[in-house]
Amino acid sequence: MTSDPEDLGQRMYRLIEELYPVCRSITGEGLRETLRRVQRDVPILLHEIPSGTAVFDWTVPPEWNIRDAWIERGGKRIVDFRASNLHVVSYSTPVRRRMTLAELRPHLFSLPDRPDWIPYRTAYWSESWGFCLSHRLLESLPEGDYEVCIDSTLAPGSLTYGECLVPGASTDEVLISCHTCHPSLANDNLSALAVAIELARRAMSEPRALSYRFLFLPGTIGSIAWLARNEADLGRIKHGLVLSCLGNRGPVTYKRSRRGDASVDRAAAHVLGEAGLGTRVRAFVPYGYDERQYCSPGFDLPVGCLTRTPNGEFPEYHTSADNLDLVAPRPLADSYETVTRILEILEQDRRYVRTDPRGEPQLGRRGLYQGVAGARQLPQYELALLWVLNLADNRHSLRDIADRAGLPFALVAEAAAALLAKDLIREA
Amino acid sequence: MTSDPEDLGQRMYRLIEELYPVCRSITGEGLRETLRRVQRDVPILLHEIPSGTAVFDWTVPPEWNIRDAWIERGGKRIVDFRASNLHVVSYSTPVRRRMTLAELRPHLFSLPDRPDWIPYRTAYWSESWGFCLSHRLLESLPEGDYEVCIDSTLAPGSLTYGECLVPGASTDEVLISCHTCHPSLANDNLSALAVAIELARRAMSEPRALSYRFLFLPGTIGSIAWLARNEADLGRIKHGLVLSCLGNRGPVTYKRSRRGDASVDRAAAHVLGEAGLGTRVRAFVPYGYDERQYCSPGFDLPVGCLTRTPNGEFPEYHTSADNLDLVAPRPLADSYETVTRILEILEQDRRYVRTDPRGEPQLGRRGLYQGVAGARQLPQYELALLWVLNLADNRHSLRDIADRAGLPFALVAEAAAALLAKDLIREA
Amino acid sequence: MTSDPEDLGQRMYRLIEELYPVCRSITGEGLRETLRRVQRDVPILLHEIPSGTAVFDWTVPPEWNIRDAWIERGGKRIVDFRASNLHVVSYSTPVRRRMTLAELRPHLFSLPDRPDWIPYRTAYWSESWGFCLSHRLLESLPEGDYEVCIDSTLAPGSLTYGECLVPGASTDEVLISCHTCHPSLANDNLSALAVAIELARRAMSEPRALSYRFLFLPGTIGSIAWLARNEADLGRIKHGLVLSCLGNRGPVTYKRSRRGDASVDRAAAHVLGEAGLGTRVRAFVPYGYDERQYCSPGFDLPVGCLTRTPNGEFPEYHTSADNLDLVAPRPLADSYETVTRILEILEQDRRYVRTDPRGEPQLGRRGLYQGVAGARQLPQYELALLWVLNLADNRHSLRDIADRAGLPFALVAEAAAALLAKDLIREA
Repeated sequence: MTSDPEDLGQRMYRLIEELYPVCRSITGEGLRETLRRVQRDVPILLHEIPSGTAVFDWTVPPEWNIRDAWIERGGKRIVDFRASNLHVVSYSTPVRRRMTLAELRPHLFSLPDRPDWIPYRTAYWSESWGFCLSHRLLESLPEGDYEVCIDSTLAPGSLTYGECLVPGASTDEVLISCHTCHPSLANDNLSALAVAIELARRAMSEPRALSYRFLFLPGTIGSIAWLARNEADLGRIKHGLVLSCLGNRGPVTYKRSRRGDASVDRAAAHVLGEAGLGTRVRAFVPYGYDERQYCSPGFDLPVGCLTRTPNGEFPEYHTSADNLDLVAPRPLADSYETVTRILEILEQDRRYVRTDPRGEPQLGRRGLYQGVAGARQLPQYELALLWVLNLADNRHSLRDIADRAGLPFALVAEAAAALLAKDLIREA
Repeated sequence: MTSDPEDLGQRMYRLIEELYPVCRSITGEGLRETLRRVQRDVPILLHEIPSGTAVFDWTVPPEWNIRDAWIERGGKRIVDFRASNLHVVSYSTPVRRRMTLAELRPHLFSLPDRPDWIPYRTAYWSESWGFCLSHRLLESLPEGDYEVCIDSTLAPGSLTYGECLVPGASTDEVLISCHTCHPSLANDNLSALAVAIELARRAMSEPRALSYRFLFLPGTIGSIAWLARNEADLGRIKHGLVLSCLGNRGPVTYKRSRRGDASVDRAAAHVLGEAGLGTRVRAFVPYGYDERQYCSPGFDLPVGCLTRTPNGEFPEYHTSADNLDLVAPRPLADSYETVTRILEILEQDRRYVRTDPRGEPQLGRRGLYQGVAGARQLPQYELALLWVLNLADNRHSLRDIADRAGLPFALVAEAAAALLAKDLIREA
Repeated sequence: MTSDPEDLGQRMYRLIEELYPVCRSITGEGLRETLRRVQRDVPILLHEIPSGTAVFDWTVPPEWNIRDAWIERGGKRIVDFRASNLHVVSYSTPVRRRMTLAELRPHLFSLPDRPDWIPYRTAYWSESWGFCLSHRLLESLPEGDYEVCIDSTLAPGSLTYGECLVPGASTDEVLISCHTCHPSLANDNLSALAVAIELARRAMSEPRALSYRFLFLPGTIGSIAWLARNEADLGRIKHGLVLSCLGNRGPVTYKRSRRGDASVDRAAAHVLGEAGLGTRVRAFVPYGYDERQYCSPGFDLPVGCLTRTPNGEFPEYHTSADNLDLVAPRPLADSYETVTRILEILEQDRRYVRTDPRGEPQLGRRGLYQGVAGARQLPQYELALLWVLNLADNRHSLRDIADRAGLPFALVAEAAAALLAKDLIREA
């Protein structure tokens, strides 16, 4: 299996293509079908939580399934679920009725400022139904009678999520979570699902210092259910990332955890800083994705959120324009690469102390320093050696040192490894 | 009684008009007359402290009263106290003499760079006398003899100040202090006297959580005398504002207390921030008004200072141009409104905790959240709900939350009230 | 002896002229000759540490001396040590050989982007030899045979450094350290040697509160040797400055100690701030001069580094263009003046408390305040009085007060002296 960025990007893109047509929701067969497809790549366990189960303040809702839906006029389908599953408000109750346009109108949703796009709307927690359609179509509807059908069921069933733990040397866990409940939307969130699969593959491919827990779950109710079932073990989660919207061409953005300065926040800030994206690191806000739940005050887990353009900030967000054209292999591969760099820091970050902290050691006789000296600029690697030697005092981790030195983490880690090999530093 | 901003502004302006002609000083009948006028609106108690009383490092001075003053040449008054009480240096000793221009000259004060304005000068603590006049007039004075008269008295009497406590539910006090010792100057400080009267009226008009203490006193010696007489009870003062220069058209400015981060500082910074005046919040400096005394190191009270353009920064400061044209009803009303917003925060700021802090509660079934979801932007009110739910952890007050969320305090307080009504949060 | 800045600058410049031709290195006669010249002005003690002595991780190297060196072609010297001692890589092993250009080439160093300048290169810790020459000359060398001679010796001897303690009232020491190991380079570091001499003269000329220790030593190995020999007494060093590159026309630059907020860091930041050079205060970096050793984690001494344009940032750095044209009397005098201002703060900084901290004292009756008041701007001196009175609370030193007030330290110190004389404050 290749890890060449281009191949990787292509593979992630193809998965998104494959899953794009499926009509997912927070429960139901579309969600299950998606998770089963994930199982072909990653051995996730599928959990089913029966409708009616209490999870903290919430109750698992009835399972929603839909077979077809349309609006007909004069025997002709003018809005058709088969053309786009976005046409139906998710969790719409079943309906089969003849209505005037005036009666139908409160059930129709469109985007006046984007007249060709279909919006994405949900009604999980209110018994109602509706159709989404382009504003252009809505505007063209003549007065008169319409045949309306939503062939859906809301019935006792279960909520499904997928979970996979990849054990590492330590039981300390990194949580990687993505939501899998959106219908035909590509960036939000098939992109992150594809990236998470590749991260899981990578975690399984070689021994790791940390354990990795991957969650593929419906937004909000899914993470709340998972938190409710795993409350006793949350202490193991030392770092976490919610992944979303990782396939479009915008720059990577990191939203800090509620704590603001957790290790994952510092690692992500370092990685974005190295890429010249320091201004794309943002403070925590209590809306967005499942970090809302992980970072609720009762848990306050060290979980940040990585996206490219964040939710709500790209015009295609929650519309039919979040389609296969919006995402591309290259940004997918870049997102994957960004996450792996963050994880590398979490894996490798350590504190060291000098074996003898008095003065600088003589690097030259250990082959760590150039022979003839005096040039105007010290090579970056020698700078990294000096920084590690100066800050190996048990108070600065390698990431602290890289931050302060303005040097790439990988270079500082390489310098530390060389100094360790020469017994000039030891782990604190 | 109206609290319509326009009416309020007009009423404050009319009071300034009424009191403008009175010749006030740090003692004397002009000061008493002014405080008696305040008593018509607010039940302040007048305190009289006899001349010679020691108050910390100071001694209450003899009482100064003045009846008339002039400079005559050839039987004609060329400088006349009756035309402007600024013509006489405040606390001038009596004088009645014939003098040459050369002898008189050291006693004359003018503003060369503002040749038409009369400066305001004082000599409270040095036995001397003087006249202030326009530079144009000074320059035109021919050599020769002048008749000079200051018909003043400096004699044992007392220093007067006014005080009023409006009790609230708590004995914790908010101190509102303004100086009342300046003669015919409108902005400095009849403007703040007028605002303070309206604040006192408001405090008396309905039950309040906090108690409010209003002080109308001569600058420096007045606040020192008050501090000396109330030293044992200063612990009750939890917040305070010195008010000054609140009637001109410049933007509101807040000077922090010496502590820098007292609740009143944070509340004022929030209110100015909401108004886009974040840059008008300044650090404490040990000159200005009576905050100098309240914030001296022996007391270090949490007292800031609110002005529009601060003392010394508007050209009319301490001149005859600080007159009825400089102040206007609209900025007076805006100043009043600004203070009330600060006080509202001090009244309403609380810390809350979530009833159950695990995950978000389901707002939809409590009618706190819209039915059909998915739109690009969350309404501000729903954001406020989420912020309160996330930061109701006993470490963040509502004002902290509003600051961090970048939302108006009133909206956050409204959200908190709604969540409290649904038992989702409780007071910490 | 004059301390007029112009005379002082001239005297420092003349010393640089005198010492410029000497071929210094980290050991040897050139270094000794330089230190003996220092002894004519300052009673430094010369320490000799035998070759082979272990100092922490290092060993004192054999002593290096050089008499002559050249490259000849066709009987003609084309590179000649007598023309510039930079031509020989410092610590070159002796060589006497006929070589082809191809054989010689790896031993030749030049600056392609500065084709007329000779670089400065060293090989202290690698047994090798080499020549430095202009790139223009290097490029012009024809193929063929060359006679190469370096008439040097590397033999047991000693490392020399100079030290002088000027005792003050307290045994707390200020360390002033400069390196003296560079051959014909004027700015780096004869400039700092000249400044250090004048500072020592000044320290000896009048009683001081602090003791001053001056070190003239070869870079790196010199400071390491000194640290190794004085390890038990390092606690006495309360402040320190490494001086270097103080003669060119660039603006003064201060590099903080590793601690970042030591008294010397704050004092230097204040002095540079007063001069409008606040942006020239930089964070610590573990390369540069002997602050690398003083600030190694085992010592972490409060030692900053003062330069004009820092090492590596002026094009002439470590080249033959760092000559007598690069330095000038005026910047030398300005550097001296900057250091003395920093030292004055260290000498005079104190914490005070108010005798009675309640309210402001009445300055007028003590003659500390003007008689007739009311003018728009308070004189700076009166501001300084108010600031000291407000912050004399045992938590703020005079330098803290000057920083916060944005006033010159000297003015604040003068105000404190006046208040002390009137018993309004006392030392904390």
